[in-house]
Amino acid sequence: MEMNQNITDDVVKCATDRAADPGIFPACKAGKSEYTASERSSRGGVDFPVSVVLPAGGTGERTGLRTPKQFCTFLGRPLISYTIHAFERVSWIQRIMVVVAKENTELMTDIIQRYQHTKVQTVPGGSTRHRSICNGVLALGEDGEDKRPEVVIIHDAVRPFVEEDFLYKIVMTAKEQGAVGAIRPLVSTVIATTSEGYLDHTLERAKYRASEMPQGFTYDIIYQAYKRCSESDLEFGTECLHLALQYCGTNAKLIEGPPTLWKVTYKRDLAAAEFIIKETLSQSACVITGPSLHAVTLAGALWKAFGTFGMELDVVPDLLGNNSNFLLKENNFIQLSVNSSLSEVEAILWALESSRVLLNSVVVIWVHLRGLDGLAISGTMTEPAPLIMELASAAKPRNVLLFGIQLHQPNDLEQWERSALRVAEITSALIRERNPALVGQLLQA
Amino acid sequence: MEMNQNITDDVVKCATDRAADPGIFPACKAGKSEYTASERSSRGGVDFPVSVVLPAGGTGERTGLRTPKQFCTFLGRPLISYTIHAFERVSWIQRIMVVVAKENTELMTDIIQRYQHTKVQTVPGGSTRHRSICNGVLALGEDGEDKRPEVVIIHDAVRPFVEEDFLYKIVMTAKEQGAVGAIRPLVSTVIATTSEGYLDHTLERAKYRASEMPQGFTYDIIYQAYKRCSESDLEFGTECLHLALQYCGTNAKLIEGPPTLWKVTYKRDLAAAEFIIKETLSQSACVITGPSLHAVTLAGALWKAFGTFGMELDVVPDLLGNNSNFLLKENNFIQLSVNSSLSEVEAILWALESSRVLLNSVVVIWVHLRGLDGLAISGTMTEPAPLIMELASAAKPRNVLLFGIQLHQPNDLEQWERSALRVAEITSALIRERNPALVGQLLQA
Repeated sequence: MEMNQNITDDVVKCATDRAADPGIFPACKAGKSEYTASERSSRGGVDFPVSVVLPAGGTGERTGLRTPKQFCTFLGRPLISYTIHAFERVSWIQRIMVVVAKENTELMTDIIQRYQHTKVQTVPGGSTRHRSICNGVLALGEDGEDKRPEVVIIHDAVRPFVEEDFLYKIVMTAKEQGAVGAIRPLVSTVIATTSEGYLDHTLERAKYRASEMPQGFTYDIIYQAYKRCSESDLEFGTECLHLALQYCGTNAKLIEGPPTLWKVTYKRDLAAAEFIIKETLSQSACVITGPSLHAVTLAGALWKAFGTFGMELDVVPDLLGNNSNFLLKENNFIQLSVNSSLSEVEAILWALESSRVLLNSVVVIWVHLRGLDGLAISGTMTEPAPLIMELASAAKPRNVLLFGIQLHQPNDLEQWERSALRVAEITSALIRERNPALVGQLLQA
Repeated sequence: MEMNQNITDDVVKCATDRAADPGIFPACKAGKSEYTASERSSRGGVDFPVSVVLPAGGTGERTGLRTPKQFCTFLGRPLISYTIHAFERVSWIQRIMVVVAKENTELMTDIIQRYQHTKVQTVPGGSTRHRSICNGVLALGEDGEDKRPEVVIIHDAVRPFVEEDFLYKIVMTAKEQGAVGAIRPLVSTVIATTSEGYLDHTLERAKYRASEMPQGFTYDIIYQAYKRCSESDLEFGTECLHLALQYCGTNAKLIEGPPTLWKVTYKRDLAAAEFIIKETLSQSACVITGPSLHAVTLAGALWKAFGTFGMELDVVPDLLGNNSNFLLKENNFIQLSVNSSLSEVEAILWALESSRVLLNSVVVIWVHLRGLDGLAISGTMTEPAPLIMELASAAKPRNVLLFGIQLHQPNDLEQWERSALRVAEITSALIRERNPALVGQLLQA
């Protein structure tokens, strides 16, 4: 798609609205952090206990969906699992207290088990946002004073893209200042209305900001704020920073966060979130050539062609030795093959299954250079089409999406380049769309 | 994709965040209109002149793209063309004055010609938003008092989803009240900051609203507002409603608009806009059976299966007589065929080319029921694979996306249903994704 190509092209150059799925991908830097990654490592990270309260009690009425949006699935995985993972992969975060409505407790327990979230505990939600967060804060203090976190991060289940650098900044500022919140510039002018529905006055945009998440507090301040606040605050309020100011006298420090911190609110936001997840999953691919000289030539041409599609390629002869690391972290594999037996693809499927839990879908594309296996194309030869469909059907429930592409051996250099461009075009489309309805298809380049 | 299925499923039931591409699709109702469609028709529509000012001078810095976002293409068509079309299809709107930066005038002229926008004039932009809108307002008055509009709608080029019902409401209220603006509830809490970057106070969310577009004014009020306002307003202001209040004493009436009025601001919004456009283009499909009983049986099974995918099917034997209307309005065609010659598909491609300007891409899917044309599958038979690739390559530049699906004639009823489900799954995926990289492929059901 033209738009995706434009965008991804640009994402590579200027990552103003891109998030990494942390823990699987290298984190890209969020905002202008006062604490850079190198500073952080020289300081030895965070040396005090930090935990997270994650309210996930929303009913999702603004998306118009029956499923609350934190439980909507993106590429087969619920949104809240992405958010949890963003915290879980941060080594200095101890616990994640997910506050969940009673009717969704069982669903949440299933998600924790299925996606092997080890730092998560759940606590029942209250009737309002503040009551839910309050339950989470109290639960973090229940195991006695020595186990209490020093800093608490409060976030939203429906903001899945938050990065370690920004969390570090929030936590260090919370420790220093007592309270801190992420802000963003206002997108629209804010206006005050009369009770009859007329314009009263407009606010001067430069003086105001949108209050976003995450926010950070020392345990004492957020605990005292909830202890001292009124029933009316718990019933009608929504802003933790306000409670810290009113009941503890702490003016929160405000830090501008990246645009990816936005809250998934409307149905269109689900599409935007899926786009970011897909984009993150399709930043690179691993090409396995095998020993064939023809396959190596094709890999070279592919490597050149892929530049156009804003995707990085690693080309390796096999997945043995050090190359087996790709099996642990790569989400896209392109197996070049000069024979029709699909044995190399079966080996990748098997290796993936035995080497990692697939939180995200993995795409495997078998690219078959026809006319090179010494066999005439005849009815007696095993046709790969039924075989690849069978393999793909078996792999799909395990979150591996298998596709095939066939091309005839090109005759000259010019034809090589043209073929490589076609293969790159189809391959990058399959990797980007990650469409389960098309698995097992054998496409022609 | 699971998400898309969930969403589209729900869209059918509850269209809280869906827009129609007006003029091509039946408009869905936006917000709680005081003026319903039936009221409107009984009142005979708008009987005074209405024109539009469409500022399109933005540089798109917040998306991080080199192309200003109003010129980014979605399925091959620039965003601004969708916005223009949303106004152009409204019979009672006379003129659309697009205010465009000098460096983009040529590009804009190309767009107007290519997409045959007949109501559009362009005027050069100013150095700020207010100066640009002011240029547009003045240009609407240049042809003398008798040609001046009575009401002016001001909108944004980057809000492509605006519907006739809501425009009607804006225009009628502007006529009555002098000034009117669309509003939306605030998504985030708005906070006031100190100059040192600390929280000063939080605003009470219920009293404030986000000011969105479109806005409407009588020509006199918007003209006087710009004539009387200060240089500082023109330089630093952004809100037309504020000018009307300050310089004409008109408190604008505020009307809550649908969520689809949001402004495409960040890169993720481009993905959200593309999603809405794709969703709108894939609400229905036309199945052409031909005379074969087998094809008619398959169509029946398909019709049943498509319910699962939230898409409506019209089944017709051919595109003759009254059925030729589908050629004028439908965006998706599924040709069932029992022979491999592709002649029926060629006829559709030809008919589309001669019957309409394709503002949006049209998907044509050839579904071939194999083993029914009385020919043994042998090397002497014309293989459809190269032929469909050739046809698809020729159709692609004309905005027609051709795909093929083959299935073997099922043996029993159960197999028919299974096959139909597979065809429906693949077909709806192809229609939804509208992926040009996959045209010409012959997929297996």
